[in-house]
Amino acid sequence: MSGKPTPLSGFPELLPAERVVEQQVIDTLRRVFELHGFAGIETRVVEPLDRLAKGGEIDKEIYGLHRLQGEAEGRDVDPSRQLGLHFDLTVPFARYVLENSGKLEFPFRRYQIQPAWRGERPQVGRYRQFTQADVDIVGQGELGFHHDVEVMRVMVAAIAALPFPPVSFQFNNRKLIQGFYRGLGLTDVTAAIRVIDKLDKMPREVVVEQLTTLAGASPEQAEQCLRLASIRASDTSFVEEVRALGVEDDLLETGLTELAAVIEGCAAAASDRVSVEANLRIARGLDYYTGTVVEIFMAGYEHLKSVGGGGRYDALADDGKNTYPGVGVSLGVSRTVVPLVADGVLSASRSVPSAVLVALATEESRPSSEAVAAALRSRGIPCEVAAAPQRFGKQIRTAERRGIPFVWFPADAETNHHVKDIRSGDQVEADPALWTPPDQDLRPQVVVSPSSTIKETQ
Amino acid sequence: MSGKPTPLSGFPELLPAERVVEQQVIDTLRRVFELHGFAGIETRVVEPLDRLAKGGEIDKEIYGLHRLQGEAEGRDVDPSRQLGLHFDLTVPFARYVLENSGKLEFPFRRYQIQPAWRGERPQVGRYRQFTQADVDIVGQGELGFHHDVEVMRVMVAAIAALPFPPVSFQFNNRKLIQGFYRGLGLTDVTAAIRVIDKLDKMPREVVVEQLTTLAGASPEQAEQCLRLASIRASDTSFVEEVRALGVEDDLLETGLTELAAVIEGCAAAASDRVSVEANLRIARGLDYYTGTVVEIFMAGYEHLKSVGGGGRYDALADDGKNTYPGVGVSLGVSRTVVPLVADGVLSASRSVPSAVLVALATEESRPSSEAVAAALRSRGIPCEVAAAPQRFGKQIRTAERRGIPFVWFPADAETNHHVKDIRSGDQVEADPALWTPPDQDLRPQVVVSPSSTIKETQ
Repeated sequence: MSGKPTPLSGFPELLPAERVVEQQVIDTLRRVFELHGFAGIETRVVEPLDRLAKGGEIDKEIYGLHRLQGEAEGRDVDPSRQLGLHFDLTVPFARYVLENSGKLEFPFRRYQIQPAWRGERPQVGRYRQFTQADVDIVGQGELGFHHDVEVMRVMVAAIAALPFPPVSFQFNNRKLIQGFYRGLGLTDVTAAIRVIDKLDKMPREVVVEQLTTLAGASPEQAEQCLRLASIRASDTSFVEEVRALGVEDDLLETGLTELAAVIEGCAAAASDRVSVEANLRIARGLDYYTGTVVEIFMAGYEHLKSVGGGGRYDALADDGKNTYPGVGVSLGVSRTVVPLVADGVLSASRSVPSAVLVALATEESRPSSEAVAAALRSRGIPCEVAAAPQRFGKQIRTAERRGIPFVWFPADAETNHHVKDIRSGDQVEADPALWTPPDQDLRPQVVVSPSSTIKETQ
Repeated sequence: MSGKPTPLSGFPELLPAERVVEQQVIDTLRRVFELHGFAGIETRVVEPLDRLAKGGEIDKEIYGLHRLQGEAEGRDVDPSRQLGLHFDLTVPFARYVLENSGKLEFPFRRYQIQPAWRGERPQVGRYRQFTQADVDIVGQGELGFHHDVEVMRVMVAAIAALPFPPVSFQFNNRKLIQGFYRGLGLTDVTAAIRVIDKLDKMPREVVVEQLTTLAGASPEQAEQCLRLASIRASDTSFVEEVRALGVEDDLLETGLTELAAVIEGCAAAASDRVSVEANLRIARGLDYYTGTVVEIFMAGYEHLKSVGGGGRYDALADDGKNTYPGVGVSLGVSRTVVPLVADGVLSASRSVPSAVLVALATEESRPSSEAVAAALRSRGIPCEVAAAPQRFGKQIRTAERRGIPFVWFPADAETNHHVKDIRSGDQVEADPALWTPPDQDLRPQVVVSPSSTIKETQ
C-alpha cells in the first residue's frame, strides 16, 4: 500500500514527543492509584450487543463488529452473539465483576486505563477513540459510604500529581436533591432533576416554567429548586445555606452529611491546582446514580464541558444472587491530553528516550561506540549510537533535533572519552562506567508552558 | 443488565493477580526498549479496509466495523471509507510513518505494545484479541544493515530480562537462501522457498518431490536445498558448513556475512535462558522480507509454533516520493503470558498493589488509620485501610486472602503503632513516618514456578 494517508477524523494520534506526555500522565495516574491499593485490570474491548444496550435499547453510538469473511452468510441477528466495541469502561467492568465474582476479593478496588469507542460524529473534544482512566470500588451486597470519600480522594490526589491547568471537582449528592424535592412536596422528583440539569443551557425563566409545566411545581417550589441549585461552596458552609431554605427531610439530611464528608475528605488531598467544591446544581443526567455525584472541569477548557465524572450506584451489577454496589470516577485522558498537547500547554523535553547519543567516528569503530552504550545502559541510562559516521558537527545536530542533551565521543588512540552537554557546550572527560547525567535529564520531562494560548485544535 | 455472563472464546481476560504478571512483562519490555532509545507510540486501532487489504485482497481474518445507527442506510461500499480493526502492529506503523514522515526523525526507532484482532476461529495459542510488543527501526530512503543487528539485539535483551522459560531466537537471511538457490542454478527461487518452508510439516521425500515438480529442481539440486536447510549452529560455524556445499554466489556471500553479524551481535545480549541460533530452514512465508528473518520459540510451548518473529523489509512503506526500509521484530505478549499464567508457570505474589493493610479498631478511629495510610503513601508505600472494623483476626485473614504481607495496628490510648508481618507472625513497634517494608515486599512480585506442569489451557 503506498501513497500518503490522511488522518481519520475523530481518531487522534500523537507524535512521539506528544506520546511522552500522554505516557507520563498515564504512569502518574497508575502510580497514585496503586499507592491507594487499586489493582489494575484490562478487559477485552468487545461486549455482546445485548450487554451494551441500555434497558434493551441499542445506543446509537456503538460500533458493531462483523467478520469480513462472514459477509456472504449475512450477520447473526441474535444480539447476545453480535459484538460491539465498548463505549465506556463501566459496562465491561460490571460484566467482569459478575463473571469473576467468585474469584475476586470484595470490596474490590480496581483501576482501568484503556480506550473506548463511540461511533458518533466527532466534535471539539469528542473523539471516536478515546482513552479513559477509571477508578472504582465495588462491594458484594454492601459497600460502606466511606468508600465514596476514598475513591474520590484518590482521583483528586492523582490529578493533583499531574501537570494540568487548574482542575475543579464539583460534587453533589442525589439523596440531597431527592430529599430536598421530596421535603418541598414535589411529586415528580425525576422530572425536576431533568429540568434543573439544563440550568446552564437555558434562561432561568424557561427553567422555572418547565419546572411548573413538566415537574408539576408551584412557582414557589420552582423558586426553591433554583435557590438550591445556586448554592456553591468550597467548604461545608453549604449545609447551613441549605438548612436556611427551611426544607426538612431525612433523605436530605443524609445527603447533606454525605456531601459534607466528601468535601472535607477530598479537601485534604486537594492542592493549589486542584480544588473541591459543593455545587448543588450538578445532577449527572444518568439515572442510576444514587448518592455522591461529581463532575470534573479544567480551567481554560470549559468548552469541553466536564473532563471526567462519576458517582455512587447502588446496583452497578446484579447476578440474581447478589447486588454489587459501586462508586467510581472517570478521567478523560484523551479529552485532556490531546487538547493540552495540541495547544502547546504540555510538551516533552525530547522525542526519544535517549539521554545520550554516542557518536561514531568511523563505521569500523562501531563496536567501541556500542560498548560505551552498553556500559551506560547497564546503569539505566537510555542511549543510542549514531546511525552513520558523519562529521561530528552533523551528529551533534542530529542529537539537537531529537532533543538529546548529551553527545558522547568515545576514546580513540589519542584522546580519552568525552561527553558534551550540547545545550551549554560544556565538554568533560568521562568514564562510561561512572558518568551519570543529572536526574532531570535521565528521562524526557513534561514541560508546562505557562504562556501558552489555550485554544482547542481537534 | 443482570445475570452471570460467560467468557467469550478467543478473548482471554486476566484476573487481577494474573494482570500483575502481564503488566510487569510489559513494563520490563518497555524499560529495555527505552534504554535502547526506542520511542513508544500508540496508533488508533482502526484502519481503512483498503490499507488492511494485501495487494487488493481483503484478508479473511479482519473484523470490520459498522455504526449501529448507520444500519438502516446500509453500509458504505468504498473500502477507503470502511474501517476494520488492525490485525498486527506493522500495517498501522507503516501508515503512521507515511502520515507523519515530515515530522519524524530518521532512522526512527519505535516500540509499540498494543492489542490486535483477528476474526478467526480461536484455537490453542491463537486469540481474537491479543497484545503484541513490536520494535522496529525505519529509515527514509536507506537504512544501514547494522540496524538489523541493533533491533534484534534489543529484543534478545528484552526477553532475557523476562522471567520466561528458555527462549530461542532462530535466525536466517533471505539473501543467503536466494543467493544459494541462484548459485545452484534454480530458476524459481520463490517456489523453492515456499516448499522448503513446509519441511517441518511434510516428510523429506515429499519435499524433495515438490522441489522437483513445483520448483523445477533436479534431484541433485533438491538434495542441496535440503542440506542447506538442515544446517543449524549457535555460532558462526554455519558459514563454513554452507561453503562446504560448494555453491558460489555474491548474494549468498552477503547473506552469510549478514547472518554471521546478527548471530555474533545477538550472542552478546543472550543469557542462560535466551539462546541465539542460525537455522537455515527458517524462511517466514511472507514474501516482503528481504534480508534478516527470525522466529522465536519458547521451551515447553513448541506447540504454539513461534511466539514472535520479524525481519528486514526493504520497503516497509512507500509514498511515491520516498521508500521506507525497515527492520523489526514482534513478541506475542498474550501468546506467551496467557498460557504461562494459565499453567501456573508465572504467578504474582499478591493480587493487590498494597504492601500494608492498615487495620481499623472502630469506625470512629478511621481518621487515625487513614493518617497512617497517608504517611506510608507519602513515602511511596502502597496500602489500603480495612473496609470495616471487624475483629483483628478477621482483618488479618483479609490481608492473607489478598496476599498483603503486613498489617498495621494504629496507636491508641494504651499502645504505640505496631506492624505485623503476617507470614512470620513477627510484630514490631513502628513509626508511620519511618517504617519501610523490605524492597521485595514493596510491589507484587512475579513468582516463577520451576515445577509447574506445562500444559496449555485456552
